[in-house]
Amino acid sequence: MSYPLVSTMPHHVDRYRLPLFTTEFGAVLRDVEIAYETFGTLHRNADNVILLCHALTGDAHVGDDADRTGWWGPLIGPTKTFDTEKYFIVCANVLGGCAGTTGPSSPMPGLTDTYGSTFPSITIRDMVETQYSLLRHLGVSRLQAVVGGSMGGMQALEWGLCHPDFVLRAAVLAATPAFSTMAIAYNEVMREAIVADPHFHDGNYDKYGVFPDRGLRIARMLGMITYRTAQLFAERFGREQTHNDRTAMFQIGSYLRYQGDKLVRRFDANSYLALMKAMDLHDIYRGRGQAHEVYEAYHAKLLFVGIDDDLLFPAKQLQQAALEAVQCGVDALYAHITSKFGHDAFLLEFEQLDAILRGFLAR
Amino acid sequence: MSYPLVSTMPHHVDRYRLPLFTTEFGAVLRDVEIAYETFGTLHRNADNVILLCHALTGDAHVGDDADRTGWWGPLIGPTKTFDTEKYFIVCANVLGGCAGTTGPSSPMPGLTDTYGSTFPSITIRDMVETQYSLLRHLGVSRLQAVVGGSMGGMQALEWGLCHPDFVLRAAVLAATPAFSTMAIAYNEVMREAIVADPHFHDGNYDKYGVFPDRGLRIARMLGMITYRTAQLFAERFGREQTHNDRTAMFQIGSYLRYQGDKLVRRFDANSYLALMKAMDLHDIYRGRGQAHEVYEAYHAKLLFVGIDDDLLFPAKQLQQAALEAVQCGVDALYAHITSKFGHDAFLLEFEQLDAILRGFLAR
Repeated sequence: MSYPLVSTMPHHVDRYRLPLFTTEFGAVLRDVEIAYETFGTLHRNADNVILLCHALTGDAHVGDDADRTGWWGPLIGPTKTFDTEKYFIVCANVLGGCAGTTGPSSPMPGLTDTYGSTFPSITIRDMVETQYSLLRHLGVSRLQAVVGGSMGGMQALEWGLCHPDFVLRAAVLAATPAFSTMAIAYNEVMREAIVADPHFHDGNYDKYGVFPDRGLRIARMLGMITYRTAQLFAERFGREQTHNDRTAMFQIGSYLRYQGDKLVRRFDANSYLALMKAMDLHDIYRGRGQAHEVYEAYHAKLLFVGIDDDLLFPAKQLQQAALEAVQCGVDALYAHITSKFGHDAFLLEFEQLDAILRGFLAR
Repeated sequence: MSYPLVSTMPHHVDRYRLPLFTTEFGAVLRDVEIAYETFGTLHRNADNVILLCHALTGDAHVGDDADRTGWWGPLIGPTKTFDTEKYFIVCANVLGGCAGTTGPSSPMPGLTDTYGSTFPSITIRDMVETQYSLLRHLGVSRLQAVVGGSMGGMQALEWGLCHPDFVLRAAVLAATPAFSTMAIAYNEVMREAIVADPHFHDGNYDKYGVFPDRGLRIARMLGMITYRTAQLFAERFGREQTHNDRTAMFQIGSYLRYQGDKLVRRFDANSYLALMKAMDLHDIYRGRGQAHEVYEAYHAKLLFVGIDDDLLFPAKQLQQAALEAVQCGVDALYAHITSKFGHDAFLLEFEQLDAILRGFLAR
C-alpha cells in the first residue's frame, strides 16, 4: 500500500477543556480535558464531519503522521476510505482513558494527586456525551458518520441513541447492543488479575510510587487471546518451543508476554479497569426498555459489521442486532469481514474495511 | 437417576508405593506413592479390568460411596456403564497430583520438606508408566479398556501407544493427539497468574507457611471459562447483577470467584502448574515421528469422543484424530456429545456417555 505524503493531509492535535461534566451515574467531574485529533478540513458550515471512536487501549491518533502510524492509518487520507479531501475526521481519547483525556491517572483539578481509585464509574454513554461537548465546541451540529470497533463500536451505537438528530450514519464494528455474559467473564478474570497485584493498593498505586505491572500484563495476555483465533495461533506459533521439549516454554507464551509487557509500558491499570467496567455496563436497553423503545427516535442509517470467529462479539449476535433494528424500523444493514484474525480484524483487514465503509458512507 | 445401595458395590481405597521411578525426562523419584481406588471385584485371572483416568483437578474417587459422590458416579455400579458386577474398575490419582499420589506437595523421602519447586517436570507418559506399575502390582496383564476425558483422555490415548499389548480398548474423551496452541495460550495465562502471586515464592510457598491462593483462584476462574460455553453462561447468568447497575458486579463474576475459591481449598498450586505443563507437553508425535510411526504397533480399538463448542479441544480436531488413526490402520471411531456445557460435558452428560461407552465396551 503506497502512502501519500503526510503533508497533503491537514492534521491537528489539540485538547478541549470541559468545565463540568456529570456522569450517567451522577458523579461530577470538573475541568475534564479531552485530547483529540482531526484530519482534513472542516467546512464552513461544519457539515462534513466523521467521528471515529477507538477501542479499549486505543487513542485519538487514528491517522498516520510523520512520527507515528495511526490505528486506522491506511483508511485515512486523500482519496482513502475516510477521504480527508472531503471529510473532517475527528477522534478523541475517551473519558477514563490515559492518552490525554481525563481519566484515573490524571491529576485532580488543582491538585498533584491523581484520581486513582476515586475516579467515578463511567459508561459508554458518558464517553458519547463528552465527545458531544467537544463536537459542539467545534461548531458541529451533525455527523456524517460515527464509526468505531469493539468499545468504539459501542460508542458508535450509543451515539445515535443518545443524540438521534445529530447522527446521519453509524457503523458498529465488532460490537453488540449489550456486552455478553462470556465477554464479562473474561473481564472478570482480567480485573481479578489487576486487583490481585500487590502493587495495586486498591487503585492508589500512584501514592506508593509503584505500578501493578504484573497484573496488567496478565490481563493483556488474556485480552490478546480473546482478540485473536485458535486458527491464527496454530498457524503462527504451532507447538514451537523457545528452547527444547523439557523446558516446555512455548513461543505462544513468549508472544503473549511480549504483548503484555508492551501494554504495561503505555497504559494505566486504573484506566484499563474503568474502561472494562464501561464495557461490562454497555447495554443499549438499560433505562430505555425493549428494542422498539430503544430505537423509537433513531434516525441514523445503521451498519453492523461482524467478524468470523470473534470470541467476544460473535458475528451471529451482530446479525441478530441488525435484524432487530430493522424490525424496529431502522435502516440497518449487516456486513461481514472474513478473517482468521478474529476480533482484531477490525484493526487489520483494511481492504475489506475499505470496501464495506466506502459503500456505507455513500448511502 | 436412582442409585443402588452402595454396599452392593465392592469399593477399595489403597496406596501403592513404587520404590523408584524415572521420568521421561530422566529425573529420578524415590518412594512414589500412588493413591488409587477400585470398584468391583478382580477376577482370578485379572482379565476384567478397566482403568479410568481423571482430568486436571480430579482424583481417584471416580465412583460414589456413602461419604462422597465420585466424578463419574452415575456411570459406576452394578448394571451401570462400568458394571461393577462384571468389571474391576481402577482409578489412580496422577503423578504430580495432590490427592494422595506423590506430587509437589508431598514430603520428599525421609524429609519433612515438600518437593515444592524441586518436583521434576512430568509428562502424560509418566502418568501412564506409574499407572502401569500399579496395575502390574495388582497382577493385571491386560486392560479391557482405558477411558478418560481431557487430561484423562490424553492418558487414555498414550496408554495404548506406550503399552500396545496391554490395552484392548481406549476411549479418549475431549482430548486431542497434541495440545493445541490456543490451549497452551490459556495455560500460559493461568501459569502467569499463579507465579505472579507474591505468596508463590518461586514455588517454595510451603517453606514460608503461605499459599498463592489469589493466583490459583484467578487460574481457576479462567479455567472455568474454557470448560463451559458462552451459551450456557448467557442462559444461566445473563447480565444479572448482584447489586445494581452502578456497582457493575455481575453474577457471572460471583460464580467464577466462587469456583476459584472452591478449588483453592482443595488443590495445590504447584500441582496445578505441574499438570498444566504435562498437558502442554502432550503430543503423541513427540519422539515417535509421523502418525504412521506413532500408530505402527497400536492394537487397541480406539474411540474419540468430541463435544459441541469445546473451547479447548474442538470436536473437529477429534474427528480428524479419529480419521488419522483409521488411515494408519487403527480400528478407530468417532462419537459426539451434543451439549451446551462445552468441554465439561464429559463430566456431566451421563446419558450420552452411557450410550456411547456401553456400545464401545461391547465391541
